[in-house]
Amino acid sequence: MSTHEIANAFAALCKAGQFQEAGERFWSDDIVSIEAMDGPMARCEGRAAVDAKGAWWYGNNEVHSVVTEGPFVNGDQFILRFAMDVTPKGQARIQMNEMGLYTVKGGKVTEERFYYGS
Amino acid sequence: MSTHEIANAFAALCKAGQFQEAGERFWSDDIVSIEAMDGPMARCEGRAAVDAKGAWWYGNNEVHSVVTEGPFVNGDQFILRFAMDVTPKGQARIQMNEMGLYTVKGGKVTEERFYYGS
Repeated sequence: MSTHEIANAFAALCKAGQFQEAGERFWSDDIVSIEAMDGPMARCEGRAAVDAKGAWWYGNNEVHSVVTEGPFVNGDQFILRFAMDVTPKGQARIQMNEMGLYTVKGGKVTEERFYYGS
Repeated sequence: MSTHEIANAFAALCKAGQFQEAGERFWSDDIVSIEAMDGPMARCEGRAAVDAKGAWWYGNNEVHSVVTEGPFVNGDQFILRFAMDVTPKGQARIQMNEMGLYTVKGGKVTEERFYYGS
């Protein structure tokens, strides 16, 4: 699959709310996931670490909805935009705007890097 | 200036329609500009080449409006989203959706990389 094909398939799964399926299908075994934050979740390497981050996220946030836009493609990378309606545990409901930059190598996503709007 | 400060200032100029001023103020002398296309404009290195690309763009497209969203920040990078209403010379008016990924080093933008939506 070309980067365009992977980007389209990954985006289609996200648009259907199947974020976990998108990762299972397209993450490389040595996926690196980079957040714009300090702490242990800032850089996760490998499927087990990235799965653990996902479990932490869903365990600590009630996700009301996510709207995915994209993909936007250049070379071996694509960008998705996420508009999220979320209630972090014990906090007020918030609207988050996030970009995900995905790098593809050998038909798999080898890196995902997240950027946050203010 | 921090990456956040540069991202905010750069975005503010773009939101005011001052794209050229944003480049003049923040581009590094060895700025690299990478488009998602083949041909001579795919990779421009240095201010003179990037200025020439800008002149080519404005000479070959009538830009009716650009709406800039962002910045979305992670580490030394930020993303802006551009929604453009453009008429390429001799062609039909189109709506373009584009992401710009900017890399900051030493207080200047050293690389800009553009991603296109379909």
